[in-house]
Amino acid sequence: MNYRKIPDETIRRLPIYLRDLTGFSQQGYKNISSKELSGHLGINPWQIRKDFSCFGAFGTCGVGYDVDKLIQQIKKILKLDTIHKAALVGVGNLGSAVLAYPGFVMYGFDIVAAFDNDPKKIGKKINKITIEDVSKIPSLKNKDVRIGIITVPRQASQQTADALVSAGVTGILNFSPCRIKVPKKVKVITINIALDLARLPYYMPAR
Amino acid sequence: MNYRKIPDETIRRLPIYLRDLTGFSQQGYKNISSKELSGHLGINPWQIRKDFSCFGAFGTCGVGYDVDKLIQQIKKILKLDTIHKAALVGVGNLGSAVLAYPGFVMYGFDIVAAFDNDPKKIGKKINKITIEDVSKIPSLKNKDVRIGIITVPRQASQQTADALVSAGVTGILNFSPCRIKVPKKVKVITINIALDLARLPYYMPAR
Repeated sequence: MNYRKIPDETIRRLPIYLRDLTGFSQQGYKNISSKELSGHLGINPWQIRKDFSCFGAFGTCGVGYDVDKLIQQIKKILKLDTIHKAALVGVGNLGSAVLAYPGFVMYGFDIVAAFDNDPKKIGKKINKITIEDVSKIPSLKNKDVRIGIITVPRQASQQTADALVSAGVTGILNFSPCRIKVPKKVKVITINIALDLARLPYYMPAR
Repeated sequence: MNYRKIPDETIRRLPIYLRDLTGFSQQGYKNISSKELSGHLGINPWQIRKDFSCFGAFGTCGVGYDVDKLIQQIKKILKLDTIHKAALVGVGNLGSAVLAYPGFVMYGFDIVAAFDNDPKKIGKKINKITIEDVSKIPSLKNKDVRIGIITVPRQASQQTADALVSAGVTGILNFSPCRIKVPKKVKVITINIALDLARLPYYMPAR
C-alpha cells in the first residue's frame, strides 16, 4: 500500500484518533465502533470509517475495531512507532512554554536540545535541558535530531530554518508567523494560532 | 442559505483562504483562479471550488474569483466582519506569548483584558494591557467581551472556563491540554500543538 496517498485531511485527523483511542485503551476498551468514537470526537462515523479504510483498517460488524491494533496501525502510518528527538530554537516566552509542554511525550517526541542567542539565557536549564548558543546548532548532526521547533522572532526564522536544515533536520514545526523556505525534502508545519481563533466566532451564538 | 451546514473541514480552511486572499488583494490582485490559490496553498483546486461553492461563491470561467468579494463573503460567514473583544486568563509563558502574538489583528480580534492569580503579576502591563486579579473576571460582562483565551495550568482550566462563561463569554480558545465542560451554547476550540507535531514525521523522508 502506498501510504503517500492518504489525504492530508485524514493525516490531520489520525493524531486525534490516536489520542482518543489511547484513552479508550487505558480505560480497558478492547473494541470500539465508529459510532462510539464519533460521539466522543464530533466527527461523522462515515468519515471515521473512510479514514480508517485508507490504511486497510475495517471494523467487524457488531464488534467494531480492535482498539490496540488500530493504535499500532496509526502509529506505524504516522511513523510514531519510534522516539523522535527534537531541538527547539528561541527560548522566549513561547519557546519556554513549548519546552514545558507536557503533551509531546505521548506521541514519542523528546526535546533534547534548546538554543538561544541571548547570553543571559545560555547555560540556564529549562525542563532538564541546558540552553545552548545558536552557534552550536550544527552539533545536532551528531545527535540524530531530525525535528526542529522554531520559536524565534519573525526576522530570525529563515536563518534559523537554514541552520537547522544544514544540521540534518528534515521536519520543522514553525511558530513564526511567516513562511520559511526550505529544500523540498524538508517538511514544514506552521502553527498559526490566529487561524484557530478565526473560526471561533462562526460557532458562537448571535448576541 | 443555512450557513450552519458548511462542513467543519471547510470552516477550518476558510481562515487560511482569508489570510492568503488578503495577501493577494494587498498585492493588487483583482481576480484569482482556484488553480492559482491551489499552487499557493497546497490544497486541491477542486477542493477550493467545492469549499467556495458551499457559500455560493462561483468563479467566472477564464477570469476566476473576485478577490475582494470573496474576502468579504468569507469574513461574513466567519463573522469576522466586526471587531471581537477577547480576554486572556493565565499570564505565564504561554499567556505572555499569546498576548504579544501579532497575528490576531488581521482577523479583527482585540485582546482587551488579561487576568492572573499571581500578586507579583497583577498590575503589570504586557502589550498595553494591565494584568488584573482573576477575581475581576466578572467585570468582563460590562465590557462586551465574548471570547476567552485560557492559558492557565491544567488544574485551573475548568474553574477558569466556569468564571468566563459566568461573565458572558460564549467562545473559548483553550490551550490547556484537557477537555473543559461548558454549557451547550458555548463553543470551545482546544489548541493542542502536539497534534500538529504528531503529523510531521509522516511527511519526513526516511533516514
